[in-house]
Amino acid sequence: MISKNQLKLLRALAQKKYRKQHGLYLVQGQKNVQELIAANIPIQQLFASEQFIAEHQSLLQNIDYVEADAESLTKASTLTSNNAAIAIVQSPEAQPIDDSAMILALDGVSDPGNLGTIIRVADWYGFKQIVVSEDCADHLNPKVISATMGSFVRVNVVRTDLEAFLAQYNGAIYGAYLDGQSVHSTEFAARGVLVMGSESHGIRQQAGKYVNTPITIPAFGGAESLNVAMATGIILDNIKRGS
Amino acid sequence: MISKNQLKLLRALAQKKYRKQHGLYLVQGQKNVQELIAANIPIQQLFASEQFIAEHQSLLQNIDYVEADAESLTKASTLTSNNAAIAIVQSPEAQPIDDSAMILALDGVSDPGNLGTIIRVADWYGFKQIVVSEDCADHLNPKVISATMGSFVRVNVVRTDLEAFLAQYNGAIYGAYLDGQSVHSTEFAARGVLVMGSESHGIRQQAGKYVNTPITIPAFGGAESLNVAMATGIILDNIKRGS
Repeated sequence: MISKNQLKLLRALAQKKYRKQHGLYLVQGQKNVQELIAANIPIQQLFASEQFIAEHQSLLQNIDYVEADAESLTKASTLTSNNAAIAIVQSPEAQPIDDSAMILALDGVSDPGNLGTIIRVADWYGFKQIVVSEDCADHLNPKVISATMGSFVRVNVVRTDLEAFLAQYNGAIYGAYLDGQSVHSTEFAARGVLVMGSESHGIRQQAGKYVNTPITIPAFGGAESLNVAMATGIILDNIKRGS
Repeated sequence: MISKNQLKLLRALAQKKYRKQHGLYLVQGQKNVQELIAANIPIQQLFASEQFIAEHQSLLQNIDYVEADAESLTKASTLTSNNAAIAIVQSPEAQPIDDSAMILALDGVSDPGNLGTIIRVADWYGFKQIVVSEDCADHLNPKVISATMGSFVRVNVVRTDLEAFLAQYNGAIYGAYLDGQSVHSTEFAARGVLVMGSESHGIRQQAGKYVNTPITIPAFGGAESLNVAMATGIILDNIKRGS
């Protein structure tokens, strides 16, 4: 059973200020909680259905778990349909940026669904780290975690002053624009930064002035633009096909 | 002003059965209605803000339009934020399938957001037609139209018995699986069909048995799968880069 106090905490953690205050975040739903457990990330508390507990019994030995019925889980969850599991997890410590490989950097991507989808596709292409500007969506937002489909356990999100990071970076800085060179003919360096802007604002001038190689996904039809998550996936495919 | 009867019709058209009954569908929001007008698609009735009307005055000569305030437009709209325009449009007549070029075919893609995003990326890559199985999301669903960001005016969606279509098709039939040949090394024919399945079910056996070239987006990391819209965009990029 989920107690009143526990429910209060779960509700609070849907909000950024309480995630920050408690140093905790939520991981919800069958797939994401499974990945969390499989990745051996310490779980502070787990609420799960009888079925979920039965199916994962051997992995739950060191986890403080509480059985809850489907209705309580759905009620406590920020997702519209989740009757499997909710975990409360300690927020990860800030990591240094590893600049030895290609880095994906996001400038002002504020939509949680887009950020989550980008984390998922970055994971598909083996990017273990994403650098995000301070005003990107909070990567511990439940909507972001949910959209990653488990990839949040493998991709490290580093929130930083993007302008300052780019200013000191020494290497190729690619940026996605509507009028750069075609990604189909770009020979990407093994080490570099790929900057993606938001759909509404693109890459802003503060970050854009450090881009030394503007690139573009060639258009063959009438659409004016692509969603930033889609564009990121297509460019990562172009980067990795040559690697 | 939007009358009570007009509001009732707008509300009804959010539902498939009434769209079918009336032979009408909704196009909502600044960008989508702009594209609709620019494409010269006959509009049965337009509800728009004073500002929208002023900005598009020269294009509205043959359109039956009604001015409405932001509050009424938002209230009448199925979108959470739309205070610009709503159009009632006659449903397009069923078109024959043009099989002279590469055809994108969807099998059981039931999520409206995914279908809309696929229509948008198909338009980006110059695909003028998408063949969808009977159980795909209704392409005249307001959520689909919204997600296309205007591309619905350029991409013709043909709903058909996918199995029967594939059975009689003579040419290359590509299908996206997790264990096919890499799209990075596939030489796509100029004419053919690309079948994409839903994220949860993949390509079902009824359609899959006609696939003669299973293809895969190579994975470099830990994610198990990609969203169907993302996967479609990446594969279309791979098809067009060689063309």
